[in-house]
Amino acid sequence: MPIIYQQISELRAALQPHRTQQSIALVPTMGNLHDGHLELVNIAKQHADIVVVSIFVNPTQFGEGEDFDSYPRTLDADVTKLATVAADYVFAPSIEEMYPVLPPATAVLAGTISAQLCGQSRPGHFDGVGIVVSKLFNIIQPDAAVFGQKDYQQLAIIKQLVRDLSYPLEIIAAPIVRAADGLALSSRNQYLTASERQVAPVLHQALQGLAQQLQDIKIAPQGSILPHIAALLAQTREHLTNAGFTVDYLEVKTAELDAMTEDFDKDEQDMVILVAAWLGRARLLDNQLVTIK
Amino acid sequence: MPIIYQQISELRAALQPHRTQQSIALVPTMGNLHDGHLELVNIAKQHADIVVVSIFVNPTQFGEGEDFDSYPRTLDADVTKLATVAADYVFAPSIEEMYPVLPPATAVLAGTISAQLCGQSRPGHFDGVGIVVSKLFNIIQPDAAVFGQKDYQQLAIIKQLVRDLSYPLEIIAAPIVRAADGLALSSRNQYLTASERQVAPVLHQALQGLAQQLQDIKIAPQGSILPHIAALLAQTREHLTNAGFTVDYLEVKTAELDAMTEDFDKDEQDMVILVAAWLGRARLLDNQLVTIK
Repeated sequence: MPIIYQQISELRAALQPHRTQQSIALVPTMGNLHDGHLELVNIAKQHADIVVVSIFVNPTQFGEGEDFDSYPRTLDADVTKLATVAADYVFAPSIEEMYPVLPPATAVLAGTISAQLCGQSRPGHFDGVGIVVSKLFNIIQPDAAVFGQKDYQQLAIIKQLVRDLSYPLEIIAAPIVRAADGLALSSRNQYLTASERQVAPVLHQALQGLAQQLQDIKIAPQGSILPHIAALLAQTREHLTNAGFTVDYLEVKTAELDAMTEDFDKDEQDMVILVAAWLGRARLLDNQLVTIK
Repeated sequence: MPIIYQQISELRAALQPHRTQQSIALVPTMGNLHDGHLELVNIAKQHADIVVVSIFVNPTQFGEGEDFDSYPRTLDADVTKLATVAADYVFAPSIEEMYPVLPPATAVLAGTISAQLCGQSRPGHFDGVGIVVSKLFNIIQPDAAVFGQKDYQQLAIIKQLVRDLSYPLEIIAAPIVRAADGLALSSRNQYLTASERQVAPVLHQALQGLAQQLQDIKIAPQGSILPHIAALLAQTREHLTNAGFTVDYLEVKTAELDAMTEDFDKDEQDMVILVAAWLGRARLLDNQLVTIK
């Protein structure tokens, strides 16, 4: 079983002897672990000798009216699952341990790409992610940290943060883990009713279809790809709405989350389709990488 | 002679073997070192086995029209001086090494106490300090860092930052080092003409006088100390103006840089008098701790 620490000082004391000869990877989570999280640990194990999993439902990344209070907290079950993937340490601090002063006076403001997409629907969300991730990096001082690609925008923002604040660690992106029917695993999937759960895989199917259509676009000489993309996005959005989703956003961006521009169709480019859509009480995220020529 | 590194990766490689058995202290500077800086190194030596002095004129803490371009850069002389106090390493990165993207996308916003005093005269200054100090902490991962008490507000903000971002290090405050005539040492003192240099010690004398007057205040029962303080501040400000200073601010705050309130006179309190005043081309800072009963 992994050893659980709730105090920063105790965790640091436990990690200290490892630092001489061993590398440390961090897997930050909010708990309520599923196979996607366990895959993050498996990947962390491939990159480091020691894996620390943090479990902390971070208040500063939840907005007013969001599900901070109802977010599932299942520490005992989480620790049992983490034993199956041989995680070494669990860091499960209290809110007071993480935030002796709440809200903190100092802020970490996530970068330029944080205002769009999820940042538009959840103002301040990525700043909350920024400060908690900074704190975890400072507390654990890992050599690597693993983040899931399902939260694509979060991953891009954390890469910016690591670059901008000179954190001496490697950010490892873990592929999305999906249910057999294609639904991306997420703790929030349990908010779905049985019938919503039947519909949910349509989200992934829609992105796959859109990706194929984007690759198949044929542009007239001197033409622009932008109207083609806009038309396909509108069509996919309608498809999702008809299936019962309330689409928060559906966009195509460069892999760095920059907006598409007219330059876009000059070269082969790595793009990403990003979606957030409500189905009942659950806000589902998904994304799909696609290379457009 | 201390070993000089300009690359983050080389500095980190050099520090790595020390981490097993030795403690590391950081002394962040903008170079152009004087005896005040060397005292910071002496104090760092008392707290750690290895002392790293960073020398970096940080562009993000200078505002438009400020002296970033003209700020004196004297690396060779600095290194020679650092040899006399047995500093172990000098980290003197280029702007490109510190800021591969400038301005950085991610921001560190200094806390609640950064808007007042120097923060009011120099908008964004402490945010620039916040990001560069965060970066230096991340690059060097020191066990302690030494900051001069002359920059009192900066010291208070960095203590907040360390608390809020969970940096695992001790902040050590170094007493102000003064010339024989009482002027606080500062790289910007060299902007003073010979005749201004004669006048400059009046700043420290005025604070000492004010501290004494604050201690001597007698309040009537049910009376408030606040009008007394306001009167003394006005008087001191006039004295400085008459001596040739242009006073930027002169204030009395709690030691945590909170404003005085009516509660203030209920108990013995640690207060600080803070001043910034222009004398010719030089903006001089000074402060004086005082306990008021």
